[in-house]
Amino acid sequence: MHLLGGVEAGGTKFVCAVGTGPDDIRAEIRFNTTTPEENLAQVIRFFQEHHAQTPLAAVGVAAFGPLDPDPSSPTFGYITTTPKPGWAHTDVVGPLREALGVPVGFDSDVNGAALGEHRWGAAQGLDTFVYITVGTGLGGGGMVNGKLMHGLMHPEMGHMQIPHDWDADPYPGFCTYHGDCWEGLACGPAIQDRWQFPAEELPPGHPSWHLEAHYLALGLVNIICLLSPQRIIMGGGVMQQRHLFPKIHEKVRTLLNNYIQKPAITEHIEEYIVPPALGGRAGVLGALALAEAARAGAPSGHQQSAEKS
Amino acid sequence: MHLLGGVEAGGTKFVCAVGTGPDDIRAEIRFNTTTPEENLAQVIRFFQEHHAQTPLAAVGVAAFGPLDPDPSSPTFGYITTTPKPGWAHTDVVGPLREALGVPVGFDSDVNGAALGEHRWGAAQGLDTFVYITVGTGLGGGGMVNGKLMHGLMHPEMGHMQIPHDWDADPYPGFCTYHGDCWEGLACGPAIQDRWQFPAEELPPGHPSWHLEAHYLALGLVNIICLLSPQRIIMGGGVMQQRHLFPKIHEKVRTLLNNYIQKPAITEHIEEYIVPPALGGRAGVLGALALAEAARAGAPSGHQQSAEKS
Ligand SMILES: Nc1ncnc2c1ncn2[C@@H]1O[C@H](COP(=O)(O)OP(=O)(O)O)[C@@H](O)[C@H]1O
Ligand SMILES: Nc1ncnc2c1ncn2[C@@H]1O[C@H](COP(=O)(O)OP(=O)(O)O)[C@@H](O)[C@H]1O
Ligand SMILES: [Zn+2]
Ligand SMILES: [Zn+2]
Repeated sequence: MHLLGGVEAGGTKFVCAVGTGPDDIRAEIRFNTTTPEENLAQVIRFFQEHHAQTPLAAVGVAAFGPLDPDPSSPTFGYITTTPKPGWAHTDVVGPLREALGVPVGFDSDVNGAALGEHRWGAAQGLDTFVYITVGTGLGGGGMVNGKLMHGLMHPEMGHMQIPHDWDADPYPGFCTYHGDCWEGLACGPAIQDRWQFPAEELPPGHPSWHLEAHYLALGLVNIICLLSPQRIIMGGGVMQQRHLFPKIHEKVRTLLNNYIQKPAITEHIEEYIVPPALGGRAGVLGALALAEAARAGAPSGHQQSAEKS
Repeated sequence: MHLLGGVEAGGTKFVCAVGTGPDDIRAEIRFNTTTPEENLAQVIRFFQEHHAQTPLAAVGVAAFGPLDPDPSSPTFGYITTTPKPGWAHTDVVGPLREALGVPVGFDSDVNGAALGEHRWGAAQGLDTFVYITVGTGLGGGGMVNGKLMHGLMHPEMGHMQIPHDWDADPYPGFCTYHGDCWEGLACGPAIQDRWQFPAEELPPGHPSWHLEAHYLALGLVNIICLLSPQRIIMGGGVMQQRHLFPKIHEKVRTLLNNYIQKPAITEHIEEYIVPPALGGRAGVLGALALAEAARAGAPSGHQQSAEKS
């Protein structure tokens, strides 16, 4: 097995790991997201120490976005138009490749997590599935036809438009661009802003959770209608409220109203919409999987196919 | 060139053609959609006449759905749970294969049209794009990563949930399953039912068209956020109202609010959301393209890749 480096570059924290997979993580480090200069220096220092002992075959970065995952683009490897202060138009891959001299894979945090779940988790053997995170933001990625989702850019699932129940919920939404898009209605900070309590402090019986399940289910219905995934994996801080899953299952079935008569949905929905098998480690393990793809010649998982083991 | 047969099996009419592509259609026939027995007999008779003169290499069927496009499924080639009277659980591929003795390709009408546009029309050279039809129903298909969209089943894009502007539009929606899903708000019969005039008789200045462009744009925003297509092609009877395109372009840009800063959307949206290059022939030409895929060994375009010419 090749020794790989993985970087989960999140909006609030970075996690870096060296290893070959879930059962073989040799070292791990975490630090807060500050400035590109400081964070990239920290990443490079961590990997250089290990590289000096056992050379790394490749490094993978799963980052917040929007970003450019297209290897044929001049800004491949950049975090592009992010609203996060200080991070717009940041070259992430360039400095790492220069300092470490190894191939560097690069994709969105959610595509990375999807690749990790495909390789070692809840999406093994599938060729069309979606990974959603509900945390500080709300985002989604996944595979279609055995390859990670790209296209013009990469999915920005959190910004789709869903029906806003203004009578039950006068809260205008948290998204600076769209107000009440999916993310604006259902991300963690929206819960906190609406109820004036951090989501993690709201008890399971609180009415917030029915509303949250309702909004999450609406977005999932759209994903099901647009993509026909074989499974949907839901991670991120908010989904640690495990009681959300049965609520979501029921609401998705009610909303679809038996239109899509596939047993996966009509009979076994609890195996269709599931938590990540890799839990909170999906992100950094996904970055390792991106590293493995880059080592094999696919810098952004563009060539990463489902057939590949 | 191999001589191919194509069947566009629509909810109101069937179109069958024999030929090799857009510039070489040797014969064409149209008849109303009635019962499976009658229509399949008509299809078989038409192809048998040609088969007797010049043998066909394969036949492709692009059909209304829901249907089963998975070649490994026992109900491959069936129209499955359609609400259309008399057509639920109809084996379409079996009788054709038996009567004609050639490979039969099978996919949704919109995936067929997408394949036709990919081969000869507005999606040439793209690997991730969507084809939408706005007619009696509202449906979508397309390619992701160079292959037609399948998954658990196939997309049912018309049944996603979008915000319903109840103040401006008290009309409850036309979908028997969901009321005001995308199709329920924006398909041709919804326009007729809401305004009590057939869509084709409403003048371009009528307020219906602003509302229609608004609803269509909401669905397109969701498609852009979920799939990040390189282009969206919009066909079907309602889109013959060409003045809808500039209205849709403006509304999509307003709704996205510069969140996705790709020039294809921010600067050249009139080349991003476009009518079919094959016009009303996208359906039957798509069926020919499905026939070609079946001849090459891909019964539902499952293996049909963008690399293939
Ligand atoms: N156990 C929990 N229950 C509900 N919400 C939580 C929980 N843990 C974290 N959150 C919420 O999730 C958000 C943070 O998301 P998280 O996925 O942990 O990080 P990030 O998205 O920044 O990577 C915050 O809005 C927080 O309130
Ligand atoms: N020129 C037109 N302008 C507006 N609406 C039209 C036009 N032609 C057809 N339609 C509407 O489109 C629907 C029929 O869709 P069409 O795509 O022609 O057939 P189908 O969807 O059955 O294959 C009807 O609701 C009709 O009112
Ligand atoms: Zn938004
Ligand atoms: Zn519907």
